[in-house]
Amino acid sequence: MAPADLTLTEASDAIRERRLSPVELVDAVLDRVERTEPRLHAYAAVTADRARHAAREAEHEIAAGRYRGALHGVPMGLKDLIDVGGMATEAGSRVRAEHRADSDSAVAERLARAGAVLLGKTHTHEFAFGLTTPQTHNAWDQRRVAGGSSGGSAVAVAAGSAAFALGTDTGGSIRVPASLNGVVGLKPTYGLVSRHGVTSLSWSLDHVGPITRTVQDAFLVLAELAGHDPRDPASVPAPDGPLRWEGGTDLSGVRVGVPRNHYFDHVDPEVEAAVRAAVARLAELGARLVDVGIPMAGHLQAVQWGLMVPEATAYHERGLRSVPDLYADDVRGLLEAGELMSAGDYLRAQRARTLMRQAWAEMLADVDVIAAPTVPMTAAPVGQETVTWPDGTVESVPDAYVRLSAPANITGVPALTVPVGQDAAGLPIGMQLLGRPFGEGVLLRTGHAYERSRELSPSLRGGALSPGAPTPGGALSPGGAL
Amino acid sequence: MAPADLTLTEASDAIRERRLSPVELVDAVLDRVERTEPRLHAYAAVTADRARHAAREAEHEIAAGRYRGALHGVPMGLKDLIDVGGMATEAGSRVRAEHRADSDSAVAERLARAGAVLLGKTHTHEFAFGLTTPQTHNAWDQRRVAGGSSGGSAVAVAAGSAAFALGTDTGGSIRVPASLNGVVGLKPTYGLVSRHGVTSLSWSLDHVGPITRTVQDAFLVLAELAGHDPRDPASVPAPDGPLRWEGGTDLSGVRVGVPRNHYFDHVDPEVEAAVRAAVARLAELGARLVDVGIPMAGHLQAVQWGLMVPEATAYHERGLRSVPDLYADDVRGLLEAGELMSAGDYLRAQRARTLMRQAWAEMLADVDVIAAPTVPMTAAPVGQETVTWPDGTVESVPDAYVRLSAPANITGVPALTVPVGQDAAGLPIGMQLLGRPFGEGVLLRTGHAYERSRELSPSLRGGALSPGAPTPGGALSPGGAL
Repeated sequence: MAPADLTLTEASDAIRERRLSPVELVDAVLDRVERTEPRLHAYAAVTADRARHAAREAEHEIAAGRYRGALHGVPMGLKDLIDVGGMATEAGSRVRAEHRADSDSAVAERLARAGAVLLGKTHTHEFAFGLTTPQTHNAWDQRRVAGGSSGGSAVAVAAGSAAFALGTDTGGSIRVPASLNGVVGLKPTYGLVSRHGVTSLSWSLDHVGPITRTVQDAFLVLAELAGHDPRDPASVPAPDGPLRWEGGTDLSGVRVGVPRNHYFDHVDPEVEAAVRAAVARLAELGARLVDVGIPMAGHLQAVQWGLMVPEATAYHERGLRSVPDLYADDVRGLLEAGELMSAGDYLRAQRARTLMRQAWAEMLADVDVIAAPTVPMTAAPVGQETVTWPDGTVESVPDAYVRLSAPANITGVPALTVPVGQDAAGLPIGMQLLGRPFGEGVLLRTGHAYERSRELSPSLRGGALSPGAPTPGGALSPGGAL
Repeated sequence: MAPADLTLTEASDAIRERRLSPVELVDAVLDRVERTEPRLHAYAAVTADRARHAAREAEHEIAAGRYRGALHGVPMGLKDLIDVGGMATEAGSRVRAEHRADSDSAVAERLARAGAVLLGKTHTHEFAFGLTTPQTHNAWDQRRVAGGSSGGSAVAVAAGSAAFALGTDTGGSIRVPASLNGVVGLKPTYGLVSRHGVTSLSWSLDHVGPITRTVQDAFLVLAELAGHDPRDPASVPAPDGPLRWEGGTDLSGVRVGVPRNHYFDHVDPEVEAAVRAAVARLAELGARLVDVGIPMAGHLQAVQWGLMVPEATAYHERGLRSVPDLYADDVRGLLEAGELMSAGDYLRAQRARTLMRQAWAEMLADVDVIAAPTVPMTAAPVGQETVTWPDGTVESVPDAYVRLSAPANITGVPALTVPVGQDAAGLPIGMQLLGRPFGEGVLLRTGHAYERSRELSPSLRGGALSPGAPTPGGALSPGGAL
């Protein structure tokens, strides 16, 4: 397999065992960047010289026996909301044209310490306030949206133009593009990963997390990112200490909740079929399926927007007054809507969230994982504004994309998306696994078991989903076709 | 000493050693209630029969060897915001005329389990939204305000009509009346004591805590109240486990911060002198005094009101629509003001609080305790609306009373008030000790050392301050004069 198509785990093993040099890997990925960027536009800025320099440094360190760990020498992209000292953080906005970060964000600092090699900053929907990332094209079909707001990160990982990337997720912004591009995305528990130095969209909903090609890759990145940081007021130490990796395909003892409401309502039949097949696979692997009811589902949308819009407006208070015309119309419209909201509106959303968190904690006392679609439909054609469901309901595309991912932001529970197939058009479908706060361990175990079982299954042999040569009819295509 | 004038610690020791029976103690305190209530009006409801029954039960249990601990058989009052199953929680409001609690609040439940004997519900300023408690008179001078909003609880403890009482504190409502009535009041760290079943004023600022005659008494009550309760979303387990009592008068190693701004600005000279003398006493006991600057002091008032008013309005949303005329004018005015506040106003206050908490954490890294006045002046005459400071500044009485206590609500840090003298009119003065989150231990140790040193000092011999026979000139009068 071409070095750019290796999973992070594979690349990392090869580097550690000195079968692959960081320089060779970074060169290969930069070459992939060069070949794919004209078509995909995943990156807002590529720092090739810096990356080559860092790769040589990693190579020397490793040769000298100073191996730092699994991310050492591995090339990655950071969503352009994440500060890197000395670089611009443009946040996809003309408002930030003159911006330059003084110092590293907490996550950039941690990745640098781990020896990861920064390739560049990936495109985001303006200030993360949208679900399409219009600058970027879907890795599987350029006429389709990348998803957002971490569209650049997901497309880069899908296309092999980063071994992994970081995104941020306020209503689904890691999971939506990961799902639409056939890669893995993890929104960790609220407070587990520091947001210091990351441009805020809505601080009570914002999360930072990895986008990777496999579940084990997501573990390797999360293990470096997690940790208490007093500079983020929401940061907390993980109550059970550092995460441990549990591989294998045996899911005995894992109780998987299958929602009877909300998560399968207004979902495309092909998406539903693929997710239900994946859930059946979890049962074959030993998991016990449990029927669960999602509490207060009718309030989810109002709570998500009721929290997000005024918090975003508060963050952009000055910009909205001084340079309103520099915001894109969609984002300015949302921010101006926030100015009309009363303290009572916001507090109603806050109080409903408190009740929702309690109700979710009760629901999650009976199951370890909830399995559901990540998004109700695959990547929409660029320019499509609404979706019409069979019962005649019309929903905006952003509302549809946020609908199944927002609950994890409101409640703060961890949520992982894993590719589980393709629709008839060859577009990837994601299954979402949600867990208890700080229950990342069982999510990763479940997601990995599913992934491994697919690799081991003769009919599906060939490994992870990979864009470039989608096969109609739902079969998975082998990687490395780009 | 008359049983009604014993400290909780003394009464508890006497009960445990069977020198005093709960029945005798409860009868003595009920007798005190009967004699003082016509004058002081501390109680909204007295449950004498229930209390006598509970006292007999405690007596039997103790006689049978089933001693429950320090509060067993000890008579106490609960602020009438705190639910007791089967009793009304009138919250000082006509809005609650028909109210009856179905079940015990978390704190009532814990005190019942500890064997404490409920005497009745004490008066509160309507819905805790005020600092005078107009129903109740100051224990030292009937023409003076009781302070509030836990005025009934503080007056009952000062008058010997309860061995201890619980109050709630959103901007100073435990500490203000405790200070104005010469007793001890403790606002614990935010999240340490459950507020389940306690009528909310402003959930991000509300606390429940003890009002007692001595610091050790406050420890005994807090030890029963503290503990995680999932029914209060803000409740957290104490990170260092259960509180331990540290007696003695040696304050070696304790760093006491003395604020150079905010806490001594616009403070009555007699109050300042008494507090500075008490601070000097802490130094004599071995504490090291450290000059500290209070961060962001100019924002305190805006943040306190910016959080409190909209949260209170959200809580009273329905009542304000359906029965606005049942609220007192002062409270309705505040609640209606909250309806005019925008989400942006509230979020600005929230964001400023976050910055303030961080800045306080930095300040508190260098000291163990901050010592300051609790309130800038002693009990105001009933009906006085404003205070004029020597520089000509005019301040409303509620603004003055909340000014020095609100910082601990905004930041969530624990704060203890301890009597430190009287002014020329014989009215009590309180010193406030503030500490790090969950630093109740060092606050109690410091307050107790001060208190003990005063008892041991020949010139001040006679123990705690006690109302009824105030001596002009600042000397303390012996207890039991009522």
